[in-house]
Amino acid sequence: MARHRRGGDLLRLLLTLLLAAALLLAPAAAEPEPEPEVAPTAPPQDASEEASDAATQHQQQHILPRPLVIELPSAAATAAASELGGGGEDSVSGDEFPPEVRCASWRLASEANNLAPWGAVPAECAAHVREYVTGAAYRSDLELVAMESAAYARAAQLGGDGRDAWVFDVDETLLSNLPYYADHGFGAELFDHHKFDEWVERGEAPAIPSSLQLYKEVRELGFKIFLLTGRTEGHRGVTVDNLENQGFHDWDKLILRVAADRKKTATTYKSEKRKEMEAEGYRILGNSGDQWSDLLGSSMSARSFKLPNPMYYIP
Amino acid sequence: MARHRRGGDLLRLLLTLLLAAALLLAPAAAEPEPEPEVAPTAPPQDASEEASDAATQHQQQHILPRPLVIELPSAAATAAASELGGGGEDSVSGDEFPPEVRCASWRLASEANNLAPWGAVPAECAAHVREYVTGAAYRSDLELVAMESAAYARAAQLGGDGRDAWVFDVDETLLSNLPYYADHGFGAELFDHHKFDEWVERGEAPAIPSSLQLYKEVRELGFKIFLLTGRTEGHRGVTVDNLENQGFHDWDKLILRVAADRKKTATTYKSEKRKEMEAEGYRILGNSGDQWSDLLGSSMSARSFKLPNPMYYIP
Repeated sequence: MARHRRGGDLLRLLLTLLLAAALLLAPAAAEPEPEPEVAPTAPPQDASEEASDAATQHQQQHILPRPLVIELPSAAATAAASELGGGGEDSVSGDEFPPEVRCASWRLASEANNLAPWGAVPAECAAHVREYVTGAAYRSDLELVAMESAAYARAAQLGGDGRDAWVFDVDETLLSNLPYYADHGFGAELFDHHKFDEWVERGEAPAIPSSLQLYKEVRELGFKIFLLTGRTEGHRGVTVDNLENQGFHDWDKLILRVAADRKKTATTYKSEKRKEMEAEGYRILGNSGDQWSDLLGSSMSARSFKLPNPMYYIP
Repeated sequence: MARHRRGGDLLRLLLTLLLAAALLLAPAAAEPEPEPEVAPTAPPQDASEEASDAATQHQQQHILPRPLVIELPSAAATAAASELGGGGEDSVSGDEFPPEVRCASWRLASEANNLAPWGAVPAECAAHVREYVTGAAYRSDLELVAMESAAYARAAQLGGDGRDAWVFDVDETLLSNLPYYADHGFGAELFDHHKFDEWVERGEAPAIPSSLQLYKEVRELGFKIFLLTGRTEGHRGVTVDNLENQGFHDWDKLILRVAADRKKTATTYKSEKRKEMEAEGYRILGNSGDQWSDLLGSSMSARSFKLPNPMYYIP
């Protein structure tokens, strides 16, 4: 068993992460806005700010606090990669399992919500993740989740009072940002808010086909549809257009982050919004999201569906 | 998109399952005990009954109610397999994804808690599951979960009052029943209570090495250790002996099902037991289990760790 030596690696990783966090927070502390909580990850949906004007928005991004967002420097990502058990010369479990096995374990652990918050795909798993999301496995995984979701939706007993609801996340749930990530290392690169916002503002994210079919079926079954996204109000227009031009129509509400939500984790923000739905008399029977923070927390759905996403993590 | 035709397959599957359940429940209804709830799965841990005498117990198993346990006949398992999207002549997505991809999706969906309750590994995935659990991937997955668990345990702030607790499930979490499942299709065969009880009563289940190391570390860190298992009180002696002879020592409490728990789902039973722990002043900081029913429900742990298990499902 190599876990004790791995423990040493982990300690080094944690120290590296703390150091990185301290370095990143130091300038933030000098800004007028309150210091964001430490949450070492890079959630794309939460990256943009309130301003609807893109140029203003880009300028503001360095002034406004960035909730949940701390970029991990490449060094930390590399440390994370060697922590995973391979790559580096001093790798411990490298002899025990080949990289492909280790990276499959990493991806499975992520999908089962076993990992601590992470900021980038471990360097040694960049190729594994690229092959996964561009290959048949990702599509197959998405289709099976949609099949299970649809079977559950069909079997659900609706109240007939128009109060049965299904919650959908947007990014990597209904719309795919794969074209963006294809140009940026599929999650292995340092997250770039400016470039991601430019991508979002193009409004060209394609539908995930199996999700579109599920969406239509859930709607036809009579569910109220709530789209609950980490995107901000500033991106409402482009998000509506993107959803519409990809075939998503007739949702009941599109909920985006407002200023007051900016410091909240996605888990907190989305739990609060689900609680509001319940307070309005809705019964949340289904919830589809690619992040556990879409699904866990309070006011949880009767049943949740976790779509695969090995490219980024949002707390 | 083939989901509509798959929908037809699903309908046939559901009808088959309902028919199978009706056939299985029909004789049960004639028994003196109340009819068990319909819960189409075959949980090994819950299979045995109260009697400590093995012979008596085996006789009783056909008289006492079997909570949660409805064996799926092979026909249903086959239907489930073709529902998965392949195998059969009229398979829809068979052309789209090869069986290996479909079975990997099935296993991932199971680990991410996306599947409806299932009673047996789909026939077309029997080889996939066998290769997984007997190969490096399963060990690697187990080790990574243990590493993440240990890192979390080390970072946790203990109160110093002896009230910080870690909950471990037993089967497929601390002890492995792989030798038994190796003789019985790795979850693809119809579950046989008699034979599984005989295996349990031999007390020869080996430790999962990474779990044993985690167990020791968690204990040394000062956590109170609660073993919370679906095994029944009738198996207390053999379970204690098996755990001890595999290196698990000094737990604080071993909680097994009593008669009053027999009709409860594992989720309900384990939630109630966690609630009792909280009522006694314990803070449950960690929880390790191979079933989502070990982890979800109420009085949930601050953080949960899902060990892989593609061989059976317990609601």
